[in-house]
Amino acid sequence: MTGAVAAKTAAGRFFEDFRLGETIRHATPRTLSEGDASLYSALYGARFAPQSAETFARAIGYPARPIDDLLAFHVVFGKTVPDVSLNAIANLGYADCRFLEPVFPDDTLSAVSQVIGLRENSNKQSGVVHVRSRGFNQRGETVIEYVRWVMVRKRDFGAEALPAQVPKLPEAVAVVDLGSACPRIDRTAFDEALSGSPYRFEDYAQGERIDHVDGVTVEEAEHQMATRLYQNTAKVHFNQFSEGQGRFGRRLIYGGHVISLARALSFNGLANAFHIAAINGGRHVAPLFAGDTVFAWSEVVETAALPGRDDVGALRLRTVATKNRPCADFPLREGEGYEPHVVLELDYWALAPRRP
Amino acid sequence: MTGAVAAKTAAGRFFEDFRLGETIRHATPRTLSEGDASLYSALYGARFAPQSAETFARAIGYPARPIDDLLAFHVVFGKTVPDVSLNAIANLGYADCRFLEPVFPDDTLSAVSQVIGLRENSNKQSGVVHVRSRGFNQRGETVIEYVRWVMVRKRDFGAEALPAQVPKLPEAVAVVDLGSACPRIDRTAFDEALSGSPYRFEDYAQGERIDHVDGVTVEEAEHQMATRLYQNTAKVHFNQFSEGQGRFGRRLIYGGHVISLARALSFNGLANAFHIAAINGGRHVAPLFAGDTVFAWSEVVETAALPGRDDVGALRLRTVATKNRPCADFPLREGEGYEPHVVLELDYWALAPRRP
Amino acid sequence: MTGAVAAKTAAGRFFEDFRLGETIRHATPRTLSEGDASLYSALYGARFAPQSAETFARAIGYPARPIDDLLAFHVVFGKTVPDVSLNAIANLGYADCRFLEPVFPDDTLSAVSQVIGLRENSNKQSGVVHVRSRGFNQRGETVIEYVRWVMVRKRDFGAEALPAQVPKLPEAVAVVDLGSACPRIDRTAFDEALSGSPYRFEDYAQGERIDHVDGVTVEEAEHQMATRLYQNTAKVHFNQFSEGQGRFGRRLIYGGHVISLARALSFNGLANAFHIAAINGGRHVAPLFAGDTVFAWSEVVETAALPGRDDVGALRLRTVATKNRPCADFPLREGEGYEPHVVLELDYWALAPRRP
Repeated sequence: MTGAVAAKTAAGRFFEDFRLGETIRHATPRTLSEGDASLYSALYGARFAPQSAETFARAIGYPARPIDDLLAFHVVFGKTVPDVSLNAIANLGYADCRFLEPVFPDDTLSAVSQVIGLRENSNKQSGVVHVRSRGFNQRGETVIEYVRWVMVRKRDFGAEALPAQVPKLPEAVAVVDLGSACPRIDRTAFDEALSGSPYRFEDYAQGERIDHVDGVTVEEAEHQMATRLYQNTAKVHFNQFSEGQGRFGRRLIYGGHVISLARALSFNGLANAFHIAAINGGRHVAPLFAGDTVFAWSEVVETAALPGRDDVGALRLRTVATKNRPCADFPLREGEGYEPHVVLELDYWALAPRRP
Repeated sequence: MTGAVAAKTAAGRFFEDFRLGETIRHATPRTLSEGDASLYSALYGARFAPQSAETFARAIGYPARPIDDLLAFHVVFGKTVPDVSLNAIANLGYADCRFLEPVFPDDTLSAVSQVIGLRENSNKQSGVVHVRSRGFNQRGETVIEYVRWVMVRKRDFGAEALPAQVPKLPEAVAVVDLGSACPRIDRTAFDEALSGSPYRFEDYAQGERIDHVDGVTVEEAEHQMATRLYQNTAKVHFNQFSEGQGRFGRRLIYGGHVISLARALSFNGLANAFHIAAINGGRHVAPLFAGDTVFAWSEVVETAALPGRDDVGALRLRTVATKNRPCADFPLREGEGYEPHVVLELDYWALAPRRP
Repeated sequence: MTGAVAAKTAAGRFFEDFRLGETIRHATPRTLSEGDASLYSALYGARFAPQSAETFARAIGYPARPIDDLLAFHVVFGKTVPDVSLNAIANLGYADCRFLEPVFPDDTLSAVSQVIGLRENSNKQSGVVHVRSRGFNQRGETVIEYVRWVMVRKRDFGAEALPAQVPKLPEAVAVVDLGSACPRIDRTAFDEALSGSPYRFEDYAQGERIDHVDGVTVEEAEHQMATRLYQNTAKVHFNQFSEGQGRFGRRLIYGGHVISLARALSFNGLANAFHIAAINGGRHVAPLFAGDTVFAWSEVVETAALPGRDDVGALRLRTVATKNRPCADFPLREGEGYEPHVVLELDYWALAPRRP
């Protein structure tokens, strides 16, 4: 009986369960609806016009109001959790994340991951697993693809590991790989009064820094509802009984929740950077807990014209989120580490319309 | 004036207001939408594949992604509250609950109840009312039917009661009455990688027990939003001002919220038991409050082939939910009563696909 | 660099930035969906039948289930915040609010405001701005129009102000201006068992007072999700870090949230007053905070037949909301001010079906 029990309940993979090159088809395809878009709005208050209004989206060239890029990302990410990171000690990072096709209400997303790197830690109690995950829609089109790496516990500390294999990852997604999820935009139809800002691609300069000013306090009910909406089952987000006895004594907030909060705050200063084309990398520098207030600022790391496109340009942005600390002075580093209030450093490409 | 005021505000029925055999048409028909499905997802994080993905639902034989069985149940239940249980001292139980037709987005549910039992308590201050409630859709088809009984206060302790009449209820819904809400399933199309488990009907054995492992902490905002979504107006769930002065000093969480939490947790071990065909009975053994963490385990009480169907089989399950206590040792009874952390004992039939 | 930063982040208008007669086109058109209707339901638990059920709405004469009047109002209001009240010291009031066209799922709302009054305060540090705001749908039809006035900080206390100009506002919306958002209702199809009350227009009398009985406790997650759903960016609702150092030490709840809570409570006694045709005026008498329990009562100020319509009549209602105080004795005034638990006094016109 006990054996049957253990077999039917998913315990998640341990480090030695991963095989280099293996492909994991993840469970629970998920149809995204206008209801999910509404919840995303209620959870973050995003105001980017194409995602907010069917009229605006159609006017500039979308066939319909697209699902927020990060909502699609979180849903794809959520599918990978039961197979990849249920026994994770830490989410170490992600890279080479590209948004390849737009997602619309009624699309159904599924996910598959391939194991592309394995490296046992020197303590032989855990190891780092790299996976390339791919989210695709009901037509089989890949809508999102990204690499992430996590530190996963070993079940058996004595298990022998194969020689380390670590994939080479790009420092940033190449400009030539940006923009396929963004239809050709009608620049003249991009109404700046409706979008909330007169600043277009050409108005941003490398090195420019923007304090997004506002702060938003996070509640337990909010991050739990968000994380369940994404069908992300990581235990640390939901179980106060066990987390109360753990390292922090608190439920840990899903890192993607912080990314979405920072992105929504960034509207104030980046209102026309309406589409995330790629995420070059992200670091969750410190944990966030309910009751904390999130602030954010961004730096324009690079600006790039897109080959063959005169409708939109790409802004490479570093968005930094802090907790309980306004960002007027752009906090990031302190000594050899991070300023102690920093919780997120996110490096991504966003598209903005060019001047007509 | 005072009379007019009293008349226009619904005070709910007291024990002596119920007449044996009377039919009560309940207020507020409710159209269920994809928005409700999204909220249900955010509130519980359910992952059963047919309810999650339009593609999966259609592949196995549904005409569309069905509304979660319990969401439909809660909505029907909610309609009965203003007429049946506004003055209830306690919800004593329910039985003979059958899910008869699937519910899809855009269906509108209404409810009717018939009083089938009345028994005054010996203290003559209250009595037990049995009602058979029926939820039906916009085509008049009954989608859910169940019996529940509640202890209701008398308005006038001196009012004479008729001789007690208590309906005879089945200990469990008969196997022959299961499955009408489940279309014929294409077993070969039931993709086990997507559904999240390789275990089908034949893999479960009577007596088998499954610890669902995970725990989820409940927040006030969550259970209030859920209970309002169901238009359930029972006062004890929403009013801290009055409940703070009451028996528990806290808002009491709607029992159906606990059922849905336990059902969502049960995915881990019962991922393919995708449809609740009937609820044989349920007992809310102890109250649940915000801040509590819910765990659950299940026992397979019985397995049954469905007459004339080779696509799905029925698992009779006892799912037990606890608060602030993991379920690795399957807590249920202690001495003559329940183990003190147990909050719910639910006896129901779920359908799972048979092997191809 | 600092200049560029200041320029790109919206700081909101200060008193001296408003010009009499100027028209402000507000950002972020918003498509309302069934998902928004579901969230509205989960946040307030409204039970008015035409908004709840497609079947009921169509039976009485609507082409579809309409979006709740106040949800549309809050969305229009939310659009005006970044331009009108980001630097507001206080929302002083609103008047002459008319609901002109029904709003249905998939409608996209935009907003425009005209400055119709400016009056510097005697302290020369702030002034009162009157705007007439107009929400319109994707066909350019005005769906809601209202005036509000806010006290706005001056950026430069030395800035010269023009002579005061204050618009003349009606004490109440004229009866002749009511009802255009309500299609002709089939009185005989207005099923009183389904709507939840037998009381129609003719059953309400001037001077009648109704205690709505129930109370509902507000949570931080709830009002934040509501206010974000409306894309209302007023800082005081979201930022505990800064508000914790402010006047109240708490996040202040959006006044519209209180209005919607009171309206939902008013179902108990006003179940058939299904449509808000106009808001004559509203005062947020005291702040509401998370943890407070809201109660409400209403007085019928006036009843009016609508010219040319025998299907519905108009009830002018004063709905009063309190915090942490039941309303059985109809609290409102005390001495020269308000009873100290009163948080809202709302004067509005609601439509109810006439007797067949």
